[in-house]
Amino acid sequence: MNIPASNYPRIVIVGGGFGGLQLARTLKGKRFQLLMLDQNNYHTFQPLLYQVATAGLEPDSIAYPLRKIFNRQSNLIFRMAEVQKVNTDKKIIFTNIGELEYDYLVIATGSTTNFFGKEDVAKHAMPMKSVSEALNLRSLMLQNFEKALLVDTQKEQEALMSFAIVGAGPTGVELAGALAELKKHVLPSDYPDLDIRRMSIHLIDMAEEVLPPMSDKASAKAFEYLEEMGVTLWMGQSVESYDGETIQFKKAKPLASKTLIWAAGVKGNLVEGISEAAVLRGRYKVNAYNALEGIKDVYAIGDVAWQTNTDFPNGLPMVAQVAIQQGKNLGINIKAKAQQKTQKEFKYKDLGSMATIGRNKAVADLGKLKLHGLFAWFVWMFIHLIALVGFRNKVITFFNWSYNYLNFDRGVRLIIRKFEKT
Amino acid sequence: MNIPASNYPRIVIVGGGFGGLQLARTLKGKRFQLLMLDQNNYHTFQPLLYQVATAGLEPDSIAYPLRKIFNRQSNLIFRMAEVQKVNTDKKIIFTNIGELEYDYLVIATGSTTNFFGKEDVAKHAMPMKSVSEALNLRSLMLQNFEKALLVDTQKEQEALMSFAIVGAGPTGVELAGALAELKKHVLPSDYPDLDIRRMSIHLIDMAEEVLPPMSDKASAKAFEYLEEMGVTLWMGQSVESYDGETIQFKKAKPLASKTLIWAAGVKGNLVEGISEAAVLRGRYKVNAYNALEGIKDVYAIGDVAWQTNTDFPNGLPMVAQVAIQQGKNLGINIKAKAQQKTQKEFKYKDLGSMATIGRNKAVADLGKLKLHGLFAWFVWMFIHLIALVGFRNKVITFFNWSYNYLNFDRGVRLIIRKFEKT
Repeated sequence: MNIPASNYPRIVIVGGGFGGLQLARTLKGKRFQLLMLDQNNYHTFQPLLYQVATAGLEPDSIAYPLRKIFNRQSNLIFRMAEVQKVNTDKKIIFTNIGELEYDYLVIATGSTTNFFGKEDVAKHAMPMKSVSEALNLRSLMLQNFEKALLVDTQKEQEALMSFAIVGAGPTGVELAGALAELKKHVLPSDYPDLDIRRMSIHLIDMAEEVLPPMSDKASAKAFEYLEEMGVTLWMGQSVESYDGETIQFKKAKPLASKTLIWAAGVKGNLVEGISEAAVLRGRYKVNAYNALEGIKDVYAIGDVAWQTNTDFPNGLPMVAQVAIQQGKNLGINIKAKAQQKTQKEFKYKDLGSMATIGRNKAVADLGKLKLHGLFAWFVWMFIHLIALVGFRNKVITFFNWSYNYLNFDRGVRLIIRKFEKT
Repeated sequence: MNIPASNYPRIVIVGGGFGGLQLARTLKGKRFQLLMLDQNNYHTFQPLLYQVATAGLEPDSIAYPLRKIFNRQSNLIFRMAEVQKVNTDKKIIFTNIGELEYDYLVIATGSTTNFFGKEDVAKHAMPMKSVSEALNLRSLMLQNFEKALLVDTQKEQEALMSFAIVGAGPTGVELAGALAELKKHVLPSDYPDLDIRRMSIHLIDMAEEVLPPMSDKASAKAFEYLEEMGVTLWMGQSVESYDGETIQFKKAKPLASKTLIWAAGVKGNLVEGISEAAVLRGRYKVNAYNALEGIKDVYAIGDVAWQTNTDFPNGLPMVAQVAIQQGKNLGINIKAKAQQKTQKEFKYKDLGSMATIGRNKAVADLGKLKLHGLFAWFVWMFIHLIALVGFRNKVITFFNWSYNYLNFDRGVRLIIRKFEKT
């Protein structure tokens, strides 16, 4: 790989997500050569992917060019590349654009959809972890309505207009809510010759409540909102198989649905060449300094890292806040180490969690404060707006949200690339 | 095709471009059953496609959902479909979603890139007539810069950073100008480890001047602007062949360039089954009422129609204004015919033409008024903004332009889908 020589230690950061970004920013202006690798040339604000899928936002609202983020950080070099393998003995990383030695390696590769070994589901269900996948889902959904106009029987129409979501975490809940809003406000006028009452939205989870990690109050309120909005809730249910046409459940009658969206689980994006001994539950086991024990100078942060504390004995949650805080702490520790100062153990500060279900309907747990309804919804929007990278993206998103709110509309129901089911 | 029965005559409009849209609007509320067919579910504002290609705008700024345009027009039915064939004797249209009888057929299919039979160029050059093609071009351009970082020789770098555009009409000129702006304002800070001076932009045309249909003053001024901005002008030159690596000219030395953008010509999107006798220079010859002579109840409007008047003995120009005015006139005539009133011959009113080359640099011929510079640039922006369909798209575009202008930036340099050369 053509990387300029440097007198400073080289830190290779794999991944430009929340963790990688924060780490790189923390090391701005410091005496390191940072090399960031990502397979995309942009950072994705994943919490809003579901709005791209449901035609509320275009990709440019939630994606931000990585080169732009770092164009005033002279100690960082970016390369669009896919990592193929690592040799941790020789400290070399192999990519599709060549190999390179590192002094420190930080794995910030995030997570990918976990189908838990269900091959039929993996083949037929729609994941939603990247901008491309969200756009595929948008195209498929709109194409299904176009197709529903062409079929002869009510049964076929209902299968095309049935959207089943597995996983009642924030992604599943927000997606179900957004689909319910489309059904109520947008689709009837778009498809005057289609009986939109035949559209159905199903949210499926093994747990007995939605948003299981949130407070009981938030879960109950979200459940109530979803029912109000006409979402069919399949709690305590798990999917046995899916052939692209019919969902078979372990304990319920089958459901005919042409679209199954899988938001039921994620697993770390592992890198080949890292010892299997370091992997725990599909993530890299790290110590309190985010280092992989027994492997020299390799760190993991964010979703791909498995770290515990007394509150989270089964690993910290795979959310943006953990990645951001770990990225920052690791940056501080790398600086401290270079100056022979003491390193700081990572302490996760839970800033709370929230989910929006629909218009004026959100739930938020902010420490002891439990909010719901209109106020929670404003808090949700405000926090997501300020968290978006870049002034331009904040304004575009704010305008789209205001427009959609005032007009009961979703502006971008465009099928730019048709989705072809394989 | 599942189309509800109707007591009114059925007008099938093939294509939701400028012409089809205007025709449908003109017949709003009238006693016809309108069926609009388009292979996309959106209308494309083609004059700004080049800004999607050069990372100035996202597709949602220039594309607008057709269903939304017509969701308050109860006499129009939309179907996303590709027309395969027409039987003008039996008055049946065949599509990928079934067949249908028509009373009147209006072909408003627009135009497609014309490679003039050059198969090697068709294979290796990039067209830019649709949103997908513009996004492909954006991806290819950005990918080329990422690749330029990886090659070893200056020669290879220069070939990757060379962008050749064939055709110095408005599209070619505006594209060349936009690339020159990227080179000047955006790419140097995005690629600090790349010598952006090695990037070159070439504009090639057989004619001796740019923007040949415009006034001599406009052509000369545009030429001057392009030279100022560092575009290499190959006037009076034509491309002999292109293998994806090197452009061979008829009368000049070859040019190594990995990207050749073909904006040199268009031809009508013809429909199978219409008699070859009706085709003239790749378009449908129509009379002053936009009817195909000798074929009952078939009309053509816009780029696909070949119509002459004393000012344009070789056919009216293939521009939006002609399509819009013909769509309106045809709508009025169809109404008149139904009421047994006299039909009106089409009279083209030339509202002028304009092109923007760069920041504060545009040319405009508005009747006797010939403008250039900052004022022409404002007029260009204003006219394009008001012509965009929908309030939302106007605001988003206006914000993007203001942001790009104030920040010397292009917000959306995202490679959402990689472009793979075949």
